[in-house]
Formats: sequence, structure tokens, C-alpha cells
Amino acid sequence: MTSDLPILTTTTNGNSTGRVPNGTASRNAGDPLVLPPGIDSKQFHTFIRRVQDIVGLENVTIVTSPGVSDEESYLNPSKTRDIFHILDEDYFVSSATVAPRNVADVQAIMRLCNEFEIPVWPFSIGRNVGYGGAAPRVPGSIGLDMGKNMNRVIEVNVDGAYALVEPGVTFQDLHDYLVKNNLRDRLWVDVPDLGGGSVLGNTLERGVGYTPYGDHWMMHCGLEVVLPDGTLLRTGMGALPNPDADPSLPPEEQPSSQAWQLFNYGFGPYNDGIFTQSSLGVVVKMGMWLMTNPGGYQSYLITFPNDKDLHQAVEIIRPLRVGMVLQNVPTIRHVLLDAAVMGNRKRYSQSDKPLTDQEIDAIAAELGLGRWNFYGALYGPAPVREAMWQVVKASFSQIPGAKFYFPEDMPQNKVLQIRDKTLQGIPTVDELKWVDWLPNGAHLFFSPIAKVGGDDAVAQYELTRRRSEEFGFDFIGTFVIGMREMHHIVCIVFDRKNPEQRQKAHKLIATLIDDAAKRGWGEYRTHLALMDQIAATYNFNDNAQMKLNETIKNALDPKGILAPGKNGIWPRSYDKNAWRINV
Amino acid sequence: MTSDLPILTTTTNGNSTGRVPNGTASRNAGDPLVLPPGIDSKQFHTFIRRVQDIVGLENVTIVTSPGVSDEESYLNPSKTRDIFHILDEDYFVSSATVAPRNVADVQAIMRLCNEFEIPVWPFSIGRNVGYGGAAPRVPGSIGLDMGKNMNRVIEVNVDGAYALVEPGVTFQDLHDYLVKNNLRDRLWVDVPDLGGGSVLGNTLERGVGYTPYGDHWMMHCGLEVVLPDGTLLRTGMGALPNPDADPSLPPEEQPSSQAWQLFNYGFGPYNDGIFTQSSLGVVVKMGMWLMTNPGGYQSYLITFPNDKDLHQAVEIIRPLRVGMVLQNVPTIRHVLLDAAVMGNRKRYSQSDKPLTDQEIDAIAAELGLGRWNFYGALYGPAPVREAMWQVVKASFSQIPGAKFYFPEDMPQNKVLQIRDKTLQGIPTVDELKWVDWLPNGAHLFFSPIAKVGGDDAVAQYELTRRRSEEFGFDFIGTFVIGMREMHHIVCIVFDRKNPEQRQKAHKLIATLIDDAAKRGWGEYRTHLALMDQIAATYNFNDNAQMKLNETIKNALDPKGILAPGKNGIWPRSYDKNAWRINV
Repeated sequence: MTSDLPILTTTTNGNSTGRVPNGTASRNAGDPLVLPPGIDSKQFHTFIRRVQDIVGLENVTIVTSPGVSDEESYLNPSKTRDIFHILDEDYFVSSATVAPRNVADVQAIMRLCNEFEIPVWPFSIGRNVGYGGAAPRVPGSIGLDMGKNMNRVIEVNVDGAYALVEPGVTFQDLHDYLVKNNLRDRLWVDVPDLGGGSVLGNTLERGVGYTPYGDHWMMHCGLEVVLPDGTLLRTGMGALPNPDADPSLPPEEQPSSQAWQLFNYGFGPYNDGIFTQSSLGVVVKMGMWLMTNPGGYQSYLITFPNDKDLHQAVEIIRPLRVGMVLQNVPTIRHVLLDAAVMGNRKRYSQSDKPLTDQEIDAIAAELGLGRWNFYGALYGPAPVREAMWQVVKASFSQIPGAKFYFPEDMPQNKVLQIRDKTLQGIPTVDELKWVDWLPNGAHLFFSPIAKVGGDDAVAQYELTRRRSEEFGFDFIGTFVIGMREMHHIVCIVFDRKNPEQRQKAHKLIATLIDDAAKRGWGEYRTHLALMDQIAATYNFNDNAQMKLNETIKNALDPKGILAPGKNGIWPRSYDKNAWRINV
Repeated sequence: MTSDLPILTTTTNGNSTGRVPNGTASRNAGDPLVLPPGIDSKQFHTFIRRVQDIVGLENVTIVTSPGVSDEESYLNPSKTRDIFHILDEDYFVSSATVAPRNVADVQAIMRLCNEFEIPVWPFSIGRNVGYGGAAPRVPGSIGLDMGKNMNRVIEVNVDGAYALVEPGVTFQDLHDYLVKNNLRDRLWVDVPDLGGGSVLGNTLERGVGYTPYGDHWMMHCGLEVVLPDGTLLRTGMGALPNPDADPSLPPEEQPSSQAWQLFNYGFGPYNDGIFTQSSLGVVVKMGMWLMTNPGGYQSYLITFPNDKDLHQAVEIIRPLRVGMVLQNVPTIRHVLLDAAVMGNRKRYSQSDKPLTDQEIDAIAAELGLGRWNFYGALYGPAPVREAMWQVVKASFSQIPGAKFYFPEDMPQNKVLQIRDKTLQGIPTVDELKWVDWLPNGAHLFFSPIAKVGGDDAVAQYELTRRRSEEFGFDFIGTFVIGMREMHHIVCIVFDRKNPEQRQKAHKLIATLIDDAAKRGWGEYRTHLALMDQIAATYNFNDNAQMKLNETIKNALDPKGILAPGKNGIWPRSYDKNAWRINV
């Protein structure tokens, strides 16, 4: 039996100097929906037999059935596709998933992919929702499921306040480990909004959390990496062997210097950063610093009644944050984000147009919230918290109508109850409720970086709200305040079963990326479909940075097997124009 | 007139696949002491004429006269040699120094060095004392003097609390800029022990300071780099153009995204780290975060009377430091380091043997110090400082005989008066006095990293003291406490005019490097003469890290012109064995 490949359209390119999509081709029984580019059915099945020999039959799955099932969700994510797809659900699809059991398997898989010149796309858990989940950039890639079997908390060191983890360890897992071992009163994990994702995966993608340890990449320490050619490497002090190492063990089982998770830089070039948002290696172990119990904690909410208060609030935040009076990574959230956590759109309105200011005000009033809502926390013993709180309260009291709440003051505010956990490193998965704002709710994140300033905040808010409304969407967003910059996270919620809405969401984000670049704002992270576009905005001096990235990519991965196209970096062996995503 | 090259011995290597030292050769009038490897007199002079066309006659100096003059010192450093040389003073010597006037000059020099295949060694100021100063690893390299003309503070941004600087800006310069512009009450510079060095150079070498911003590399933000092929690059958000850029200006004069100095990571691989302790680019601009005035400050000294107190002190420090009760980068200094700042060895002893415990105790008594002396500081408004101080005092009071001092309690303690400045970011150059412990004092730093623990501290102290004494030196050292690790800085002081002492110092450090590696301790930074040895200790899994470094080096610098041998990384175009330094 044969059938047509359902998804890919043929791309012919007379000047092609590299791989292009496979195009429409006949399909044999047992073939995947999409074959890896340049690979025919026979080669594919030979590869599969070989990779089965490496990891065992139970760790290889060929992707034959179309579609994202209704069973697939954040807690049960697809391993083959983006559950929040904006293109056809079978566009960004892998040909097979392979789950290595250990480091040696990863090395063997890399070597095999080089032999066959088959692209391989690593993912840890697949809960990278809003940015593409487990789906690969190149359709037909092998999905490398790092989380299924490689999910050990290798070490939690109390004196050094760090953990050493494998890719499959989630924030929830690490927190549970601390609780189970009676360490939670000493050590905290910094968690992002949703606690189900991989610690290692989130950190490599440079995700953030909300305690003083919110800059996850800053707080990592030491990597173990399999390079595209299969070489195993340890970075920083990990390159220094431990005198107690047992030479009969394989390298990945040997201890390194005791400082591997204590000191990042080692000796010579500090290479860790090139393995983030990158296609230069598969990280198999990562050290993560844990926050020591600060000796006291108090979360709070400050509500600002008016839309225009955003400007003043951000101006107040800037000196407090850089001066560490605001000790953690706080957020100013638009009321609709909180409203969406607490109910779907139909609960609040029957309108099918973007909500008006009057409607939004009514929702804020109903929920007892402001138009903007600031969730922060104080850390430390009582006298320190008290000193901080006096400054915080006096500062924000300058905004007329600002109100101050502790969690016990507002038991009905689910968001405050959740943030009270998040800001002390207790993982939850409840916040994703906002994705149900629309039926069959899915989302995309548009995440530009800005300086911490009222003018920039208002300009970004005005622009993103106006554009959202042009495309028929409500504005739902939050400003996440780092030390000196804000990640503005705009949540574009759409109905994934509505092709028109999907396309509008896609057009909206593509428009926003261009709008932002014209204002000098760039995004810190993005969905698979937008990687090329955003990479092209970082084009100083004739794309000098991309040329550097390509040079290093081609040197470390001459056959271009590892995650081609990730973050817009295409190896020499691919014709990048043939893979362009048109909106 | 011709004369023999005085320094280099011929190295012949039948299997050579790359450049080797030039060997003894005839020397023409006007030739440098040492020609670049593989370059003859005629080629050299052609190169010099070409480089003079780029930067002007006044910015090129050929190194013809031998020796380090007595005029050369920390504040007036040699631009061609290591003032604290352990080999012959004319071994690590450049053939010429070239001082670019601007970024375009740097680019042109890189292209010219590629054309001639001449190695080039960038330095900023040359005050990298203890690690080799301005001297190149490969004798005969062109010394690229980045500090002479490129010394602008381009911007100090108060809202964002950052500076953008060129290589020639010293810590003193940046501090002076703040004072002159009435900004010092708002912004502090973190300074190392000596304030005369380059902010950019120190940070790229991963030097540390002593305020809460003591991890300089962590606190940098954004680089502008000339790659070995002359390409100009901006990292992070610097790759995103500013909409207000004037396209008629050259790229290096154009503004980037306003977030260039606010957010490190940008989009895609985070490349900044590969330009530290590296030979992959010449950094021409760097963003540096400044600490905002914490609203209060109090430095202090705690003395511990007994040698054995080191163990308990470090055990007390660990939880306080990782818990940020100790907010900055404090130090525990051996009494002889303080003694050496306050007087030379002859003041204290006429013995020509290493000082005994009794003699050291007598010195401590004379100076009113402990055997170990802890210099720390409190930051923040009075209630916060008070809360911290209560904890600090209670904790260290567990050590019998510990005494607590504020600067006003001990006006005669020069070190405390200096540290009071250093820990609040006021640069000084007074501490280098300890180098005069011996006549014609020079020094080498041995700097292993360890976990913050009593056992490790005592083991490192015992080892380094024992070895120092074996080679006839006093132990002079300090433990610098980062968040989770200690930089143990052992100051090997020797008489640079005494060849036997130089050789002993060299043998001592080489011995210590091996001793340390056997214990699982590695160094974070080192002198030119020891780079290969230390790099070889970071050899996990058959030197996987070095292979990665070499692959990237060869991809970005195929002719190997930029700083060959730096941190043990030799380009393919060099025969690394031919450049080995024998002890």
C-alpha cells in the first residue's frame, strides 16, 4: 500500500547547495508521515533497525498516524508535534522518536545520524509549550527523547546548594526530591510559571523563574555535553578529573573535580553559552544552583487601578529592582491574564470582538483586581523583610488607588495563591488555565526584551494590544522584570481547531516581530515557525553574528545533523531558503 | 651590522606540521630582538611599513633594546615584556607594539596579520601582573596595545546602571568618571585589589573584585569584538540594530538596541564566554554593570588568632556566603600578606629561611592581627546591616579569640584602611606593596579553585605552605570567597634579579599545579609560562574540551594569527610541542 505524503509541498531550487524538503513522494507501509530530508524509505528503515539495535525496540517509535490527539496536553505532551500548532498539526512532525537510555546511547545515535546524514532534534520533556513543544524544525527529523529514560537527580549537594540533573528531571521532580529527602527547609528550586517542564531544557532555552534565582542560565553550573560527532565533553571544572575516579568506569559515570557544580568558568574559553538555544551539542547533565532558604518569605500583590498606571509603576520598579530592594523577578500582569486563569472568556463576555476598556474595567472590578497587578515577594528574616516592605509600600503608594494585599487578604484570588507558591519555588501547573480563554485554546508567546522604563512598557503595551485587536485577539500579557530589563510576554491565545484563527495568530506574531525590530526591540526566544524571522532581525553589520554562528556550526557539525534550523542557524548542508515558513 | 638573536634556542622538529620558534638567526640593523616565527627580516620590515600606514608612525614601536628597565613598574608597565618575568626577561618579548587608534584599525591589523601570517597578542594596559603583563606567549608576536588610544568611557547609563567602555579604561578611570560626573553617590564600580588595570581586560580574564558585583564576568553585558578575520561583531542584544542608527556612520559608531547593556543573552547561542581567556577575538567594547549605591556600608575585620582556626572559619563562612548574609566577596588572608603590605621582610626578620610559626606569631602580635584575618563588609540601610552584623558576629564568635574591628578601631592597620576602600569600589594601588617583601620583588600567582570547606582550605594551605617552604619561600596567600567556591590566591614572591630564585619560583608553581591536579583542584587563570601545563590538567575524556577549543580556534582563525598558545590553545598552524616551556 502506498499513499501520498500528506503535508510537504515540493520545493525545487535550481541553485540548491543543500538539503531541501523531501516533497510529495510515494509512501510504503510502515513509513512515517514524513521522511527525513534526502532519505528514502529504504534508508529510513535501515536506520531504524540500526537505532533499534542501539536503544532497544521499546525506545523507538515511528510516527505513522496523523494529527494531534485530544489526549495530548501540557501534562501529556505530544512527543512528535506541537500541541499548540499554528501551521497544520502535521507540518512540524518527526519521522520517529528515539529515547536513549544513557549517555553511550546518545553518543551512538549521534554517530549513526552522521553516518546516515539524518537530522536529529533533541527535546527533554516536550512541555516547551508556546514555543513548539517537542516538534522539530525540520519535518521528518528524528525526535531525540532525552527525558523518557534519562531522568535521574544525580546529586543534591546541601553544602554547595546545587543539584546535578539529567534532561528528564522536571521542576516538580526536583522539588519532590527535596521534599522527600527533608531538604526543602534548606534548599529551594527556582520554578517557572509551570512546573512540569525540564529543569535542563528550560535553562538551556534561557527560561526564567521568579525567585532571586530567576535567571536560570546565570544559576546553572557545569554541563556534560555530547557533541554532534558523539564526543563527550564536560565544561568548566568538569574537565578536571576527580582523583577518586574509577578508570574502569565509562567517562560519563566518573566524578569530576568537586568544583564542577561550584565554579562555572574553569580555565580557557568559557564555552557553556554556545550550548544554549543552540544546535551544537546535546546536554546530558547540568548542574543547577539551588537557593538556600532565605530565613523568611512574604509574597504580596499590589493592584494599580488604571491602564495608564503602567508607566508610573515601571518607573518605580526600575530603581528598586536594580537596587535589589525588589529581590526577586517580579511581574506586572495585565488583568486579562489573571482573569483568564480564573475563567474562560465566555464567563466574562459574549462579545466576539476584542474586549473594550469598559469591559476590561468591569472584569477587573469583578475580580477585585487592578488593570495592572504586581506580584512580588520579600525574602529574609523579619527585620530585613520589614525594611524592604516599608520602601516598597511607600514607593508604590505614589500611584493613586494602588492597593496592597498579602495572600491571606484575598483567598479568592487564585493567581495570588498560585504566585505565593511560585515565588517561593513551589511548582504548580495551574496557571496554564489561561490557555482555555478560548475554546480549544492554544497559544504562542511573543517575548520582546525592553529596558525597564515606563515609556518602553507603554509603547510595547500599546503596540501589542493594538495589533492583537487588529487581528481579532484580546491582549493578554505580563512584564517579567529582570535586573535591568523586562521580558514582555504576550500570550497570543487562539483556537487551534480553527485554521483561520491559527493563521491570524501566525500573522499577528510575524507582524509584531517586524514592528518590534523597527523600534529596536528583539525577542529572547520563539516558536519554531518564527525562528528564521527573528534571527534575521539580529543582523548588525551584515549579519556578523549569524556568520559566526554558522562558522561554529559547520566546524562542530559538518554534516549538519543536529537540530538544523534551530534559532535560525542552518548548517552548510541545508539550503536555508527551501525551509522558509511563509505566513 | 648583524648580531645573533640573544634569546631563542633553535628548536628543530622533523615531524613539525606548523610554526616553530625562529631559532638563532642573523639580525640586521633595526631588527627586533626576536622576529615573529617563520618571518624573516625583510618580511618583518615590509609588515611594519604596512602597519605604519594603518595606524601611523607614532603608534608602532619595534622592540630592539634588551631588558626590562628599572623604570618599569605596575604603574608604568612594560608594553613588551613581563616585568615579573620568571624566564629570562627577553624570553616572552614582542617584536613590535602596534597601537590601533580605533576599531577600523584593529580590523585592518587583523587582515594584515592574516596576510603575513604574523601572530598578534592583544593587551589592554599591561598591568596583568603576576600572570605575564603585556608579554606575548609566542616570542616575536606583535603586541597589540589596545589601551593607548582606545580608552573612552563611551557611556555611563544611570537608569540602567551600566558603563560601556573601551579596552584602555582602567578601574581608576571609570571611578574617576563617576566622581567627576557626580555619579559616585549613585553608582559604584567593583574593583580588584589593584585599581590600575583595564576593566575590560580584567573581566575577559575573569578577574574578581570584592563587592556584591565581584564576579566581573557575570556582571558584564554585551561585547563588541573584532574576529581574527577582521569581522566586527556585537554580541547579545548588540546584534539588533537601533532604529536611530545613522547608516552613513561605520558600524562601530552606530548605536545598537537599547538593551545591549541590559540583557546579556540575545537570541540563539550565547557566545560571549568564548571570548574570555581566549584567542578567538579582540574585544573592543564591553558593557559592565555598575552596582547601585546600596544605601549604607560598613567594612570590618575579624581576626582569628590560631593557624588552625582556618578550618572553622571557612566552615562558618560557607552557609553565610551562599545564603547572602555575607553579601560580597570577602577574603581570609594569611597574616604574612598583611604584614607584607605594611613592611618588607627585613623589617620583621633577618632569617634567610622561611619564617617559622613562632616568627609568624610574633609578626601577628606586633601588628595586632590574627594568623588569619577576615575582611568583609555590610551593605544596605542600617536595619539591614544591623540584622546581618548580628548574625555575622554571633557566627564568628564561636571561634575562641576572634576579635572584631571597624576601620576606625584600627587606624594603624593599613590593610583594613585599604580594604575599606576596595570593598566599596574605590580603587587603590597600595596593596601591591607586598611584592616588596623581598628585594627586587616580583611575583607569580598560583590560583586553584576549591569548594568552600574547612578540609579543602586546610589541605590547600598545608600543601602550598609546605611546598613554598621546600623551595625556600614564605607562604603568602588569601582565600577569596565566591558564592560557592574559593579562589585560593598564593602569592609567590621572588627576587626577579636573582636567576636562581626565578627558577625556584617557576619550579614551585609547576610542582603545585601537578600536586593540585592530583587532588582534583584546578587553577582559574595563570601566567604565560604555565598555560600549557594547566590546560593539560583539564583533560577529562581524552582532552575533549581542548579538542573542542582547537576546533573552534581553527574554524575562526585558520591561519592561527591571534594569540597562539593563549591558555594552552595552539592553532593548527603551530607545532605546539616546539613551544613547550621546560622548567
